[in-house]
Amino acid sequence: MAEGLTARGIDVTQVEMLPEVLPTVDVDLGALVRAELVRQGVDVHTDATVTGISRAVQGLFVEGRDKAGALLVWNVDLVLVVVGVRPDTDLLVRAGAATSPRGAVVVDESMATGLPHVWAAGDCAVTHHRLLGTTYLPLGTTAHKQGRVAGENALGGRARFAGSLGTQVVKVFDLVAARTGLREHEATSAGFTPVSTTATPDDHKAYYPGATPITIRVTGDSQTGRLLGAQLVGARGAEIAKRVDTYATALFHEMTVTDLTELDLSYTPPLGSPWDAVQMASQAWVAEHQRDAERSTLGQP
Amino acid sequence: MAEGLTARGIDVTQVEMLPEVLPTVDVDLGALVRAELVRQGVDVHTDATVTGISRAVQGLFVEGRDKAGALLVWNVDLVLVVVGVRPDTDLLVRAGAATSPRGAVVVDESMATGLPHVWAAGDCAVTHHRLLGTTYLPLGTTAHKQGRVAGENALGGRARFAGSLGTQVVKVFDLVAARTGLREHEATSAGFTPVSTTATPDDHKAYYPGATPITIRVTGDSQTGRLLGAQLVGARGAEIAKRVDTYATALFHEMTVTDLTELDLSYTPPLGSPWDAVQMASQAWVAEHQRDAERSTLGQP
Repeated sequence: MAEGLTARGIDVTQVEMLPEVLPTVDVDLGALVRAELVRQGVDVHTDATVTGISRAVQGLFVEGRDKAGALLVWNVDLVLVVVGVRPDTDLLVRAGAATSPRGAVVVDESMATGLPHVWAAGDCAVTHHRLLGTTYLPLGTTAHKQGRVAGENALGGRARFAGSLGTQVVKVFDLVAARTGLREHEATSAGFTPVSTTATPDDHKAYYPGATPITIRVTGDSQTGRLLGAQLVGARGAEIAKRVDTYATALFHEMTVTDLTELDLSYTPPLGSPWDAVQMASQAWVAEHQRDAERSTLGQP
Repeated sequence: MAEGLTARGIDVTQVEMLPEVLPTVDVDLGALVRAELVRQGVDVHTDATVTGISRAVQGLFVEGRDKAGALLVWNVDLVLVVVGVRPDTDLLVRAGAATSPRGAVVVDESMATGLPHVWAAGDCAVTHHRLLGTTYLPLGTTAHKQGRVAGENALGGRARFAGSLGTQVVKVFDLVAARTGLREHEATSAGFTPVSTTATPDDHKAYYPGATPITIRVTGDSQTGRLLGAQLVGARGAEIAKRVDTYATALFHEMTVTDLTELDLSYTPPLGSPWDAVQMASQAWVAEHQRDAERSTLGQP
């Protein structure tokens, strides 16, 4: 697997067709994740396409092309193929279920397919998104919640799926990247007027050892002030995974970015700040995007 | 400072008048914090009262009594006295400001004292609590938010303090203890009908190394299902400080315990579970306290 030796002693090469790794976050935040991969010794190729995998006398070979079309060849021991998800709905389609353009089975919020006594949940089904309406967003957390709703209703219940926000997190060596809600281009497509601000507040008070900055991009609607999404990248140990949950819970309740700064969140110097990092990033958004008149309604009655 | 050598090489003795350390959480959760203190070599005396501090030729002495009245004496180098907070409001009282029974200056939600052009904020002022109404709860987070409201209004703004939930967290060596909202006795005093459930979900999936249980006590109203409070104790690194924030944000929005299980929170095996620990603890409460009929309304329309 080419040059590059990780901390774990395995040579790893990553070949990504898109311009940056982790395309679920904005490209400059994905670049932070790539930097961590490189720092850990991974040989990262972006804008590169795998064209074939073949077995020869000398072993297993992966062939690809870089952006300029030049040939790339790696002699490897093991290939992990990660190329996305496609719903396998053949059984349901043959039974008469409707599918969406992405091929996922259409269900309502009770996870009913429209076929009598048939409910569907998980990666095969469309997702109700609280900001986007019906979409396709296969995630484990969503599958669990949908499955519970479908199971409840199959037994005669009246449960409804509360909806996804696209909340997700990934650990990449010693870095954690998370997001919830919408990024700007997604929000624009959904009819919002998104504006974003990026801040780098410390995870806890700098005078207590070990403080580390978190890169937080807050996206909100410039017309209504409503929070639309957040992306966070920072060190493992900076409680990124559960900080994104505060944004997710705020999104669930359609809070404005300003209102988020009023939440009574926990604080102790080794673990936070009197205004938590999620609030400092929100305040940065407010300072940049809210007109003075709107700012003076802080803590609206 | 008696026997007991901490990891940091300083002999520490803690003398606590109450039956358990950290009386801001329930006594059995405080016992977990005491166990960590003892594990780190601190000599902990509960139900013990300090009666005097004196300097002699041989050095500084602290005298006290245990529960049975027996004399306790420690020869020490340094004494840290932590005996609570009393508002120092003399200046404002002489100017004519009203005070509450605890001696804090009475303010409304705009932090106005009633005296012309005088606002008050922080440890000297009463606290508006979203579940308790007017109370006294001096915390740094609250002081910051109140101060901003007072400052905004002193400049002619119309800001209002959104209210405290009593959210707090403390790190004790390698343990973290947090709480938000009300404990049972506080909820009962406030007119609720609280019931609690304690669960010990892992901070992340057990198959990924390093999983550690978090002790979580969820308190909710048995009549309405409304979330009233949560207490969490667990290892540093288990993202306790920001997990309590999810409960705090849910409390801010008066969510039911059931609704909390529907939030779209983040998940990756090294950092969480498909149902996060805060949701597993909530599900345990629902299973124990909600009647079948109520449970079937999961994800109410």
